[in-house]
Parts: sequence; structure tokens; C-alpha cells
Amino acid sequence: MNFDTVIRGGTVVTAELSQDVDVGITNGQVVALGAGLPPGQREIDARGRLVLPGGIDSHCHIEQVSSFGILCADDFHSATVSAAFGGTTTVIPFCAQHRSDHIPEVLADYHRRAAEKAVIDYGFHLIVANPDEQTLATDLPAAIDTGIRSFKIFMTYDRMRLHDEQILDVLATARRHGALTMVHAENHGIISWLAGRMVGQGNVAPRYHAVCHTRSSEAEAFNRVIALAEVVDTPILIVHVSTIEGVSAIRAARERGVKVFAETCPQYLFLTAKDIDRGLEGAMFCCSPPPRDEAAQQACWQGLLDGTLSLYSSDHAPYRFDASGKLPKGEKTTFKEMANGVPGLELRLPLLYSYGVGSGRISINQFVQLTATRHAQIYGLGPAKGTIAVGADADIAIWDPKHRVTVDSALLHDNAGYTPYAGRELEGWPMLVMSRGEVLIDQVAAPGQINAARGRGRFLARERSDALQPAGRQIPEIAQLAAWNTPLSI
Amino acid sequence: MNFDTVIRGGTVVTAELSQDVDVGITNGQVVALGAGLPPGQREIDARGRLVLPGGIDSHCHIEQVSSFGILCADDFHSATVSAAFGGTTTVIPFCAQHRSDHIPEVLADYHRRAAEKAVIDYGFHLIVANPDEQTLATDLPAAIDTGIRSFKIFMTYDRMRLHDEQILDVLATARRHGALTMVHAENHGIISWLAGRMVGQGNVAPRYHAVCHTRSSEAEAFNRVIALAEVVDTPILIVHVSTIEGVSAIRAARERGVKVFAETCPQYLFLTAKDIDRGLEGAMFCCSPPPRDEAAQQACWQGLLDGTLSLYSSDHAPYRFDASGKLPKGEKTTFKEMANGVPGLELRLPLLYSYGVGSGRISINQFVQLTATRHAQIYGLGPAKGTIAVGADADIAIWDPKHRVTVDSALLHDNAGYTPYAGRELEGWPMLVMSRGEVLIDQVAAPGQINAARGRGRFLARERSDALQPAGRQIPEIAQLAAWNTPLSI
Amino acid sequence: MNFDTVIRGGTVVTAELSQDVDVGITNGQVVALGAGLPPGQREIDARGRLVLPGGIDSHCHIEQVSSFGILCADDFHSATVSAAFGGTTTVIPFCAQHRSDHIPEVLADYHRRAAEKAVIDYGFHLIVANPDEQTLATDLPAAIDTGIRSFKIFMTYDRMRLHDEQILDVLATARRHGALTMVHAENHGIISWLAGRMVGQGNVAPRYHAVCHTRSSEAEAFNRVIALAEVVDTPILIVHVSTIEGVSAIRAARERGVKVFAETCPQYLFLTAKDIDRGLEGAMFCCSPPPRDEAAQQACWQGLLDGTLSLYSSDHAPYRFDASGKLPKGEKTTFKEMANGVPGLELRLPLLYSYGVGSGRISINQFVQLTATRHAQIYGLGPAKGTIAVGADADIAIWDPKHRVTVDSALLHDNAGYTPYAGRELEGWPMLVMSRGEVLIDQVAAPGQINAARGRGRFLARERSDALQPAGRQIPEIAQLAAWNTPLSI
Amino acid sequence: MNFDTVIRGGTVVTAELSQDVDVGITNGQVVALGAGLPPGQREIDARGRLVLPGGIDSHCHIEQVSSFGILCADDFHSATVSAAFGGTTTVIPFCAQHRSDHIPEVLADYHRRAAEKAVIDYGFHLIVANPDEQTLATDLPAAIDTGIRSFKIFMTYDRMRLHDEQILDVLATARRHGALTMVHAENHGIISWLAGRMVGQGNVAPRYHAVCHTRSSEAEAFNRVIALAEVVDTPILIVHVSTIEGVSAIRAARERGVKVFAETCPQYLFLTAKDIDRGLEGAMFCCSPPPRDEAAQQACWQGLLDGTLSLYSSDHAPYRFDASGKLPKGEKTTFKEMANGVPGLELRLPLLYSYGVGSGRISINQFVQLTATRHAQIYGLGPAKGTIAVGADADIAIWDPKHRVTVDSALLHDNAGYTPYAGRELEGWPMLVMSRGEVLIDQVAAPGQINAARGRGRFLARERSDALQPAGRQIPEIAQLAAWNTPLSI
Repeated sequence: MNFDTVIRGGTVVTAELSQDVDVGITNGQVVALGAGLPPGQREIDARGRLVLPGGIDSHCHIEQVSSFGILCADDFHSATVSAAFGGTTTVIPFCAQHRSDHIPEVLADYHRRAAEKAVIDYGFHLIVANPDEQTLATDLPAAIDTGIRSFKIFMTYDRMRLHDEQILDVLATARRHGALTMVHAENHGIISWLAGRMVGQGNVAPRYHAVCHTRSSEAEAFNRVIALAEVVDTPILIVHVSTIEGVSAIRAARERGVKVFAETCPQYLFLTAKDIDRGLEGAMFCCSPPPRDEAAQQACWQGLLDGTLSLYSSDHAPYRFDASGKLPKGEKTTFKEMANGVPGLELRLPLLYSYGVGSGRISINQFVQLTATRHAQIYGLGPAKGTIAVGADADIAIWDPKHRVTVDSALLHDNAGYTPYAGRELEGWPMLVMSRGEVLIDQVAAPGQINAARGRGRFLARERSDALQPAGRQIPEIAQLAAWNTPLSI
Repeated sequence: MNFDTVIRGGTVVTAELSQDVDVGITNGQVVALGAGLPPGQREIDARGRLVLPGGIDSHCHIEQVSSFGILCADDFHSATVSAAFGGTTTVIPFCAQHRSDHIPEVLADYHRRAAEKAVIDYGFHLIVANPDEQTLATDLPAAIDTGIRSFKIFMTYDRMRLHDEQILDVLATARRHGALTMVHAENHGIISWLAGRMVGQGNVAPRYHAVCHTRSSEAEAFNRVIALAEVVDTPILIVHVSTIEGVSAIRAARERGVKVFAETCPQYLFLTAKDIDRGLEGAMFCCSPPPRDEAAQQACWQGLLDGTLSLYSSDHAPYRFDASGKLPKGEKTTFKEMANGVPGLELRLPLLYSYGVGSGRISINQFVQLTATRHAQIYGLGPAKGTIAVGADADIAIWDPKHRVTVDSALLHDNAGYTPYAGRELEGWPMLVMSRGEVLIDQVAAPGQINAARGRGRFLARERSDALQPAGRQIPEIAQLAAWNTPLSI
Repeated sequence: MNFDTVIRGGTVVTAELSQDVDVGITNGQVVALGAGLPPGQREIDARGRLVLPGGIDSHCHIEQVSSFGILCADDFHSATVSAAFGGTTTVIPFCAQHRSDHIPEVLADYHRRAAEKAVIDYGFHLIVANPDEQTLATDLPAAIDTGIRSFKIFMTYDRMRLHDEQILDVLATARRHGALTMVHAENHGIISWLAGRMVGQGNVAPRYHAVCHTRSSEAEAFNRVIALAEVVDTPILIVHVSTIEGVSAIRAARERGVKVFAETCPQYLFLTAKDIDRGLEGAMFCCSPPPRDEAAQQACWQGLLDGTLSLYSSDHAPYRFDASGKLPKGEKTTFKEMANGVPGLELRLPLLYSYGVGSGRISINQFVQLTATRHAQIYGLGPAKGTIAVGADADIAIWDPKHRVTVDSALLHDNAGYTPYAGRELEGWPMLVMSRGEVLIDQVAAPGQINAARGRGRFLARERSDALQPAGRQIPEIAQLAAWNTPLSI
Repeated sequence: MNFDTVIRGGTVVTAELSQDVDVGITNGQVVALGAGLPPGQREIDARGRLVLPGGIDSHCHIEQVSSFGILCADDFHSATVSAAFGGTTTVIPFCAQHRSDHIPEVLADYHRRAAEKAVIDYGFHLIVANPDEQTLATDLPAAIDTGIRSFKIFMTYDRMRLHDEQILDVLATARRHGALTMVHAENHGIISWLAGRMVGQGNVAPRYHAVCHTRSSEAEAFNRVIALAEVVDTPILIVHVSTIEGVSAIRAARERGVKVFAETCPQYLFLTAKDIDRGLEGAMFCCSPPPRDEAAQQACWQGLLDGTLSLYSSDHAPYRFDASGKLPKGEKTTFKEMANGVPGLELRLPLLYSYGVGSGRISINQFVQLTATRHAQIYGLGPAKGTIAVGADADIAIWDPKHRVTVDSALLHDNAGYTPYAGRELEGWPMLVMSRGEVLIDQVAAPGQINAARGRGRFLARERSDALQPAGRQIPEIAQLAAWNTPLSI
């Protein structure tokens, strides 16, 4: 055999096992795993290093106008460069329909922008804000046909939220055509009602954002959307789980056989509501749902450990700490008008590595599972992405488990201009990052440099994954309904 | 002492104990309990009989246009006569606001009709369908001031349902002014979405009503309204619990200290969905939520036993089995247009006595608790109503525990014209019924006769009961909100 | 009517309601309740006072050699005097069989001692430490015939504990003959194994007692004895519940229909393990199970509120803070040799009144329920004891709800010589205590005096209560077993 | 590269993914995975076939005197041959200490017998029946040093069971030296007490075996041993889970972070108690715990799906249907004397394939996970065993997913002489089985033949696996105990 590249002498890690083998790469794919592979044209010395599948970040907002109407700070270039520096080689951001948008135009627009700028491969989820007949009958099936196999819906935010019957319509369409529905699940009424009263009393600081997003508003919405998914019997994925009650609601549903996947994010493992409680600066830590407390962090860790939570994503939502994003836009600005979201694309993996693998909470195999493999399995990117195996794309990050970094926003490559994790001491860092066999980053040979043409990233049309299989637990009369097998007009 | 009446030789039963004592009555009140009381002007021989507090039915629809727009079959005369024959001496029906109704007019109207016709004492709950500023700030407080200390809200029915923020508004008003909020809790989206599809496929028979009201639609709404009540920290009462999941949701909430009361009804203990599955006749057993299965019946019994469910009411909602109620009104009529509800005012107590006390499931003291005492305690009617004690109104039913009856609608006194319990063999029957010391019914001396002037029943202005005390478990920032202590305009 | 005594002008409280009525007493019994009763030979002015049923303390150790071999500090005189001063008018202490004891002799011995000294009425529970064939077939049925309708068994303590088959034997006998089995449920292995290691390491201070009695040792034993009771389908009563996990285990069992009653005690509501953590003085707060933490206190309160815990008893186990009880008996003495138990007969009611009723946690009716009525119902003392009703014994305590006391052991009447509650400020105190119509204590007329002859207390033979009814949930094959209907020899 | 063997054209399946790649094998190990590998000396055509890791059966009884004193029907030759025909290439049977046995002799004896006869590789678990000081301090650590990294203990069976303190001793030793403790968890008292009564009444048929082993006896013991493991904070593995309640107990423990693994077996997925209820023939389906009902099967499936149950093993315990095993040994023989256990080594994988993969309940990757990979991970056999990866042993089974077999004991190779699954139609069968690169079985080329010398199997000394890591959740005072870091004599 004749290899373009051989990664030699490292420990290759998958979700299943860790092996001291070489990796032979040709034409952008892994073509051999074995000890003592013959030399490649390029040899990469990985002795003492971990050879990991590049991360997949399946929840990040790029060049998107958010649900509260503010354009986020990263475009497809800055975001994908930032991701790559953090050891992530695939992203799945959103194409966001707002209520008045025509979906084909939305898709075309995001495709065009990503194709011009992305430096790593990407898929898309489609945010559905207006599930009218045209959307359900034509636009969503068409999007699925192009490989956009996941929708996202919101249960809160005035501009985006769907009511229960609309959610059922989207779920039925997802089932009929084979897509996974991601859900931002918070009870709109509680949040909105409390926020109105808080502001009415002059409680306008960022900390009141966390007060209004009660723990119960998360658990309530989880229970509700799970009930809706059970009616249709189609899998859902609940994003950014943040509370004890939320983890419990998902666990209880899974125990009775409902197919509900879930995700948590760095901000729910590594921040708390106390971070928000520091005046205006607190806005830097503001996201929805907000970080909670240590007990909630512990519940999220436990959820990752026992499989209640399948994914660890960033929910990267970058806004600058100025009037374009986090800061007041006028005299009367309250927490309701501040941009919600925190950056996280670049530090997602290093944070989990240090606090998870480094501390012994999770194994390196679980790290790979949570940051890459399960994303590929659930969202239909496997086996090309998410693992190191013969036939897979050579999307690989080589980590130095001993490399220490003190977090500083100056080190990072996104456009947020700050990081909520500033000052943290991390150990373990991606030193070399490869996408389809091309070395984009080599922190030893060319520190801080990226060797990647704008637009080299490719769109990933995704297949129907096993995750989409219904659980088959429905009430017979409902299962017999033609609703998801025939057009909605019946 | 000089008694108007002495009930002599019976076993007097309260929620707490059973005693062989005489009951001395003067001026409509119990004035003495004791063995060997001196003779009264009237002596009632109760040897071998049970002397029970008259039942309180705190959930019944009388002379009301329902949430689906059909006038129910009973007026205040027929309903209260029927109640009395069944051993019930107090009812709390509804004053129903529909969306466009002005509450003071609604109240005046119901007051006038009840005052003319009722033969036993009555209170009112106020159905709130349009909680606008006028309603919240003025009309509800005014109603409370007149002794109408309970609201009812709906989470389903197009004409009545409130969305989550409206529910929070009503709950905050209830807390501020001291009222208990009753909730018809079913997820509107699930029911409506499924019903649309069922009808779309031609599944229009009554049985599909039960299919659309999934068990999950009950549990979902319970969880949601409990979450809303927790935000406000004010007690709620969930009516007509019918499912395992519903009982569990309430139990879990109570365990964590939420103040949620709940009720079940005869139809959930003694009927199942199979009763609905008999073609058009099934309509006679149709109500919302529908009867379920044996396991659900068992869960409701267990809920009554362990205190998860506090009350046993009828949810009497009488409609005739003809085009005025249960039957199709035109060629295209489906289960969606049929009147929902079953009669139950008269048989509520005999059913529970036979199937509960007779079978050994509950004690006679629990019977009194479930049918009378707890209603008085929760709704603020005690100690005048709901028990036999010195100082209480002499609202008493004397039961023959051995009297056997085969149920037949001809025996009953409501206007439904049928009973879902036809043919059942019951043992134990109220033979003499007394309201404020007046014997209305004496089945031995004057079988089938009632001696009660139209309009003798009195309106009961209710006091703030202990049940209204908040649990005191709120998030500090929320507890500090002035929302329920000051006008909403803040 | 002609009354010996009339208590006039007070608020008479039962588990069910509070009424402003007079109480007429003749021949030691309540014979009338009513407003404006005719004068009695003795008139007691109760204006502004609460007229409560005397407390029943169904868990107290009097003149007993404990399970660890030390005689407790109170005899039947000091204990019953102390009880009376605290508003308690009935006690149910133990006749304790140790392994080599012959039960008839044990019973005779306790009967003799109580008959000589008790100043209030009393029943007995029988501790069963050696359930051999003689015990099961003859001695226990004979004891039941004399009105000792409750056994107590231990799952820990080397001298007392029964293994699982012995427990099943006792439960089957209890079912067959109609007795309630009380259980001290802690896992012996965990406690003993940890204690051995703690002492082996020199961790001998009282605080290590609390470490060894892990929360899990309580929950484990609860689960186990509940499983055993379920096999036999006979009710049990778990004494002195102290943990979140324990409350949950009982609640879960009750939810699935198992008939398990439970009790908690002042030390689990008002003390924590921190009280034990003060060197040798900590011994004064040492009992088994030990007090836990604030969260556990909260769980016990919640258990009382939702009915998971039915009873509030003292588990009075008085030992002096010297070498006769709490303090070391030799150089090598460790926490294993210190007497376990705290005094509580006298302060049980005042503590619950102040911290429960006074703080608004429970109503005065719940207070009566928890301190008197439920004890009578469960242990078969009703309706003579535990309530104020026509026909009941006139065992009454008249409380001044505003009387304030600073707790000091000098005020108390037991022989422990200290109280774990020293220094607490309580509001609400029993000012007059009456047993069968005789005023024993009148703190206004004769402060600190008791007018009661030694031995005036009477033994209460108890009837089979409703609490003993099996739940009827057994596996058919097991239910058909003759085991509890015929002698064990089959 | 130069391969001894190439498996060409099949679908290679691991726990993580399925790939169409060739497998290159040299010196008994997989050395390459890739499409289009160069030819090997031997070429195996796997087109249309599944190439799976050979199964690992980590729970089987071979040549062992059982806990009830009967020698099982298979020796190391017949058992390992049977295993191989069923697609299993590694077994971990037991070395069984009985109370009076000296462990080094026990080990030597089993080692000798296995070394002579086994045709596939094997490890050993060590059954500990007498954890005295010699055992704990010397014999168990010595066994661990030789690579026997798992103990098994019994909570029932008179000859084997340990009491709670003994269990704590074994767990502490396991923690100190690094071993996993397997637990047969059933409540001895319930089973024994009921069995005595059943037999006393003449209920001696096999079906009464299932009655005595109540569902609660499983859940009780699970809860108890979990509590014990929590005290020591060392992982345990609960074998043969059979009930809803048992699955729930494990799930609840895992949720709160206890490290408890668990296993189920074919008899709990594919048989029910009805199989035992056919007179004496029922004995063929008798095992402990017994098969239950459909709901319990469903719970076990759900446990496998959500990770509550990690392993699927056979608990192969073969006894002939004659007086040497299953049938009466004398006139008075009852179900208590019948051999307990069912054969399952050979059909374990085909049953799960047909009913699991074939029916769509589980994916083929989950099949590999449950039958091989997780066994290797938990018991320390990886990465050499349990997966197909470069560097792993070439223990491979090539399955024809379409091959249909009607089960008949004549097809099987164990010595039980019957199978509980006779007559079942299975689809999917291992056609070629390879151990360390040697083809033992080729059902196409040499149907029914095995090409394996007696004794070719090798003993597998096992390493400390990640599964042994404590959870780190202990009470500080207990964690500080030296108990598991220093000799027990402290």
C-alpha cells in the first residue's frame, strides 16, 4: 500500500477503544489502521499524542439572525476557523426561517454564504418558524431531499415559537419524510410573564434573566414536547439541557421507551447563575436557558455518564460585549433586549478534556463519543465522520494531553471578543488538525497559523440515520392514522 | 334542653369516627350529640341506620351552557331535587363566563335562577374565560367579596381555554384575593390535532373521542398547570383526574411540597373506555376526560386512599340522548359535536357506598371524608357544612346500609333521561334526607316524595379556607415580586 | 343534664375541626358538646384557650432494659408524671422480651410495675426477640387476647434483631391473630461493620455513631421489611423515620398499595447530626437512628404533611449523662457502649406546637391528629381515647396558645437530668391536664403540682383496629397458603 | 503486507459501526482492516455475510458442583465446543469455593480441568462462599494476582450465601485489590420461608419454585447489595436480572451515581413462568430467578436498550432431564431438590439475533456490544477480545443473516440433552467460527464438524478494567477509613 500520509506512533482513540496503531491516509480517507504501516509520502509523528476523530459540533449559530433579531458575530469563515483551532472538523449550524421567510430562499442564502467561506465541512439544520401548508407539504420534504435531515423548533421566543398543534404538524412531517426534530424547550408563558413583572419593578439587570427562566420552565416544556412526540411516535432531540428536573424528565421518558435524545453544553457544565450575577458584565454569561448551580452541573454530568444526554455541543452564539450584542442599545434597555448566547466553538473540546478526561470523570473513549461519534450517528454523518476507521474521512485532531493553556480571548479565533472561560487553566490541547487528510493547523510547525482556503469546506448531505426509527409504541388507533404516511390534506 | 328533632339510636359517622349517639337538632342546627338525649318534638328512629353528613357535590353543572355551547338538561330545581334524593345536601355548581360575557351579569343571572329554584343550599364557582384587565382587577375580587371563593379555568375547549400567561394572571389574582383555582387540565393541541385527523379519516363514532383524549394529554396538562401554580405559589385543584399518569403527576408534585388538590368522579371509578365503544350508544358514556381502563380505575382508587386525590365529585353534566344533547344534529355530525358529560348527582354517593364501603375498599369514615367533609374544608364551607357536629347545620342523610336498589333511570330525578349505571345492583341507600333540620325526603314514610319548596335553598357565601394558604416555597426573587400584592398595572 | 364538670368557653379541637363549644363531663367521660351547656358541679374556664384531646405517646421506653442492656432512667411513675405535664394522657410503652425471657413472665412483670406506679392510662407493645415455636404458637396469641395488639421487632442490635425468616414468622402470626408489628428498621450489617472499623481506627467519639448509621442503612431496612410485609400482606408500622430516603421508601410502598404506617419523632424534626458533633456532650443527642440534617428534617415534615408519616411520637429513651447511661463506663468505652436514646415525653407536644402550629406549618387540627387521634386509630384505642367526642374518655389538655416557656431541664419531670432542647423558646403550653375527668395538673391554680395517686392509671386492653385489615394484594398462590390461618406446624 | 488469512467482502461489525472492509489476519491477530487487502494465504469469502467478533459468555457454569450440590452436565470440552458452535469464542465460567474448600486448591483444580479440555479461550470468576480472614487477606488477593479479577457471591442458597457483613468484607477486598464482585441477589428469607410453607402444604411441583421466588425477593436483594456497595464505593455487577422491579432498582441506583452493572439472560427475554407450569416437564425451564411474564421481558429489553443492563449472558447451567439433574431423586422429592438452571451457551447469540436484530428491536452494533464488547470492557479482556480491530485476537464469527434453523436439541452440542427453546424458528446463524485465527467450525465446508484439539483454549489473565474505578461518592468519614487500603486487622 501506498499512503499519502501516515500518522505514526500515536494512540488512536474511538468511542469504543484506544489502540497504539498507525493511521494510513490516502485521498482524504483513512485506508489502513495497523502497527508498522509502510511509510507515507508525509509522515506525522504522533508519539505520546492522542489521535482523535475531529469533533463534530452539531449545535452552533453562524452568520445567523437570532430568534431575538440580532445578527451573531461570526460568519462562516471566522466560525469554522475557530472550530478548527479547537479540534472540531465538522459543524452543523442552522438555516433559520423567520416567520415571513420563504424556506427555499433561506436555504439558498445560507448555502451560498457557507460555500464561500467555510474551511471545514458542514451540514445544516433548518429552523422552522412558520409551519404552514406550503412549508409542511413542500418545503420541508424538499429540504430533506437535499440532505438537511433535521429541523429545529422553538417553544419560546415571540418571533419563533410554535404552538402545540404546529409542533405536532412538524413532528408528523419529520416522521413521514425522515428527519430529526431538535427542540428548544422552555415554557414561554412562565418566562414572559415573569419577565414582564421583573421589568415592571425595575429589575432589569442581566441576573433577572436567570430568575425568569425558572427551572420549572425547562422541565415543563420538556414534558410537553415529549408528550407531543409520543403522540406522533417520532424521535426528538432536546437541545441544551440545563437542570436536574430536565435531566429527570428525559430519563423518565427514555425509561418508558420514548425515543428522546438530548444534549448539554459547556455553559451548563462549567458556569453557574452566579456568573451572571455581576452587574452588566453578567451579560457575557447570559444564554437561554441560563447556567444554573452546582447541583444542576452535577445532574448534567450524570446525564452524560448514564446516556440520558447523548451529545455535548457548544450552542455557540457569539455576540460582542458592546451595543451590537450584549450591551444596552438605549436608555431603557433591560435584560430582555440583550443578546442571549455565549461563544464556545473553540473551547468546547479543551474544556471537556480538562474537566472530564483530566479529572477522571469520563474516559477518553467517552470524550470521543460525546464530542464526535454520537453526533455522526444521530445526525446521519456516519461512518464518514465522527470516528477513525478504514473508509472514514481523515478528519483527525492530534492532541497533546500534557499541553497547558491559560484561557485568554486573545488566543481564540471567533469574533465574540471575549470568552466566559477567561483565566481557566486547561491541560490537553489539539496540536494538529486535519480535514479530509489536509493538515489545516500544526501548532508546532506553524503556531497560530491555519492553512485552509476560504470555501474549502464541503456541504454534507445527510442520510436517514437509525436514530430516526420510530419506537413503535403507539396507541393502535393513532398508529393507524394515515397522517404521517399520506399528505396532510386528509 | 329542648330539641326540635332528635335522631335517635343511629350510628353517627364523621370523617374521624363512628359513634352510637343521638343527635339533637334545634333551629336547623345540631345542638347536641349524646347517648340518651331527652325527647325532641320530632323523633326520628335511626336504629340500624347510619347517620351521615349530607353529601357536598362541589363539581356539577346546572342550568349551564357548556364549554362546547349546549345547555345542559337540568335546571336548579331538577338538579337539586336529584341531588337530595341521592343524599347530597349542598351543591357548588358554576357561574360560567363565556368569552364575551360581563361577569357581574353572569353572576346576577345564575344567582337569580338558583334563588328561584334550588331546594338545597348552594355555592358557586366562577368559570373565567376572559381574564382581561377588568376581570382581573375588578370583577374577580368583587366576586370573591361576595363569597365566591373559587374560579375554574380550562386548558382546552376553543371557547374557554386560557393560554399559560392568562393562567398565571388568574392564579396571581386568586392568590392576592384568596380564591382557589380549579383546573380542567387537558392538552388542547393533542386532542384537537388528533380529532381533526380522526374526523378527516372518517373515524367519527363516539369511541374516537376517547382515542383523541390520550392519557398523555391529561398528564401533560397536569404537569404544566402545576408548574404554573408553583411559580405563583398558590394552591390549585385539578378536577376529574382519570389516569395513572395524572395521579402520578399530582403525587409527585405534592411530594415536593406543591399545594395541589385533586378530585376524581364516579365515571373514572366505575366506567371504562369500553363503555364508549358501542356505536352511537357510546355517547351516553362520553365525557372529558373519558373513562379509561381498569388500571386507571385502580390508580384513582389508590389516589383516594393515599390522599393524592382529596375529593370525589360527580361532574354532573346531563345531556339527553337525543339531538338536544348526545345525538347527531345533522348528517355530518361527529364525536366532536356531541355533548360531553354524564349525569351523576344522584348516584354519586350510592355508587361509592356500594363499591367502596360495601366492598371494604374504604371505611365509612373515608366515605364521609370524600363525599362531604373535605369538600367543606377545601372550599370554605366548614364547619357549618360537611360534618355532624354541635353547631353545624343539620344537613343529614340517614342511610340504610342494607337497602338494595337495581339502578334504573326511572328511579332517578334528573332530566338526563338515562343513566350510565343502569342495571347495577347497589346496596346501601339514603332513606331520609334533611337540610337545615327539615326533612326533605323520607323514603319509608313517603317513598319518592320530596317536601321542599322551590327556592328554599340558600346561597352559601364561603370564607377563605386554610386550603388557600400558600406553601411558601418560592424562589426569593419571585416571592419578592409585588405581582400578587399590588395591582397588576405595575 | 347534670354534669360533673363543664369546660366552658374554649375552642374544642379535634383532628377534623375546631369549634367554640362547651364540654360536659360526667363519670370520666365526655357526655355533651354544645354551646351554653347547663352548669356543672365543677366549672373550668377555658376562654381564650384550646381544649385538646390529651396526647397519646405510642412510642416510649419506661422502666425498660434497652436493646443494648442498660436500664432506662424513668420508672412508670416518673415517666407518666412527665408525660402528663407535657399534655399527654396515654402512653404505650414496651414489655421487652430479651432472647432468654419467657413472655408470660415479661408481661406479668411489666403489668405489675405499671399498675403500681402509672398516673395515666397505658397500653403495652410487646418486643419480640425470640420468636420460637412457643412464642409464635402460644405466647403471642395469648398476649393479643389480653389486649396487647402490637409487637415490636428489631432489625439491628445483637441482642434483639431477628433475621428475615423470623420476621416473616412474626408477621404471619400478627396477621393470623390481629396485631400490628412495629419495626425498628436499620441494616445491621452496615452499622456493625462500619462501627468495627471506626473503633478500630480510634474514631470513638459520639459523632461516629451518626457516621455508622448511614442514611442508606435506614432506607435499606425499610425496603426489606416492606418486602417482607408484602409477602405476608399484613400492615406494619415503621418507627422513628429519620431520612429523605426512608420517607421516600415508605411513600413508594404506600403508592403501590402496601399498608405501611410510619412515625417520626421530635429528634428528627428539631435536632441534627451537628448536635452530636460536640465531643462527649454529643452523647446527649445520641439516638438510633441519629438526627440527620436540615434536608432530612424537611423530608420528615413533608412526610407528616402528606400522610406518608402518620404518627409523631417521642421514642422517649431517657439515660442520665453519667456512667449509668450516656458516659463512658471504663477507659476503653466508645460510642458503641454509650446508651442510645433521648428523653422527649414531656416536650413532644410543646415542641410540635411551637415549631408546627406556631409557625404555620401545620394546623391545630393536624396537631391533634398527629399527637393523639391517629395513635388511637392505628393502635386500637379509639374512640375512647384520642379525640374529644361524646362517649370518649375525658382525657383533655387545655392549652394556653400564648404561654411562653424557655426550656430548662429543671422544669421537666423525667429522670434524664437533661434535655436536648435546653434553651429553646417555646410558645404554647398545656396549662390544665385531665385524665378521665380528673384534673391532674392545673398550672394556674397549683403551678408544678400534680394531683394523681400512684397507680391511678389503668391498663388499656386494645381492640383490633381497622389499621390491621390486610390490603388484599397478594399473589394468589401465596394468599392461598394456610400459613396465617392455621398453626405454623403445617 | 502478507496475511495468513483474509476475510473478504463481508460487513465487519463492531459495537460502534458496520463497514464493508476486508480483515487481514496474521499470527492469530487482526493486523489490517481495509477495502481491497492483498491476498492472504487463506482466503475466506464473506460476501453477503456479517463478520462479527466472537461472543464472550461471561456467565456460564462448566464442570461445576452447583450451589445446591449437583454436578452440572457439561465439562470443559462439551461446554466450549457447544459455545463455539453458537458463535462464542470466549467463556468465563466459575471456580467455585464451597464453604469448606481451600481456595488455592479450588483454583488449581479448575485450571487443570480447563487446560486439558477447553477448545476456546477462557477466564475464571471465583465464587466466594467462606470469606474468612485467610480468604480475605491472602487467597483473594493471590487469585487477583493471577488474573482472576472477579468474584461471585450469593445472597441466597444455604450452602453459599453470605450475610451482609461478609458481603461488605468481600467488597472491601475487591476494592482494595481491584476486582469486580458479581452478585446473585435474591432475598433468602422470603424464598426459603415460602418454600417451606409451599412444601408443607403439598405444593411440590416445579411451578411453585416460581411462586416462592417472588419479584420482591429480587428487588429487595438488589436494593440491599446496592446499599452495601455504596458504603464501600466499589462497583458490583448484578447477574441475571429478571423483573421490572429489579431493572428499576438498578436504574435508580445508576441515576444517583452508584456504579452498578447488570446482566440479563435469554431465559428472561424468551421464556415466562408459564413455561414452568406444565407439571414435571416444567423443570426443564426452572432456574433461579425464574422466568417471569411478558411485562418483565419487556422491562429487560428496555434495560438493555437504555444501558441499565450492560450484558447479555447465558447463565448456562446444564442439567439432564433425569434423576441426575432435573427429575425427582426419591419419592419425596419436591421442587426444592430439583436442579436449577437451563442450558443456553449455544443458542444465546442466535436467539438474540433473531428476536433482537431480526425484529428490529436492536441494531447489529448493539448485538455486538451486548454479546461481546461490553463483556470484554467490564471484565478486563479488551482490547484483545470482544471486538474486531487491528491488534485484537482474530476471534471471529461469520454469520449468515438469512440462514434459518428450527431449534432441536439434536442440533446442539452441550450435554443437557434438551433445550428450553425447542421448536423455535430462528433466522441468522454463525456459519464459520475462528479462534485466534484458526477456523474451528465451517458449517458450509464441514457441517457439524469442529476442528479443535482438546486443550487448545488458553487461560486469559485479566487486567484491571476501567469498570473497577470507584465512583468517588462516599461520605467523607467513611472514605477516610483505611479499611480498603490497609489490612483488615485494623
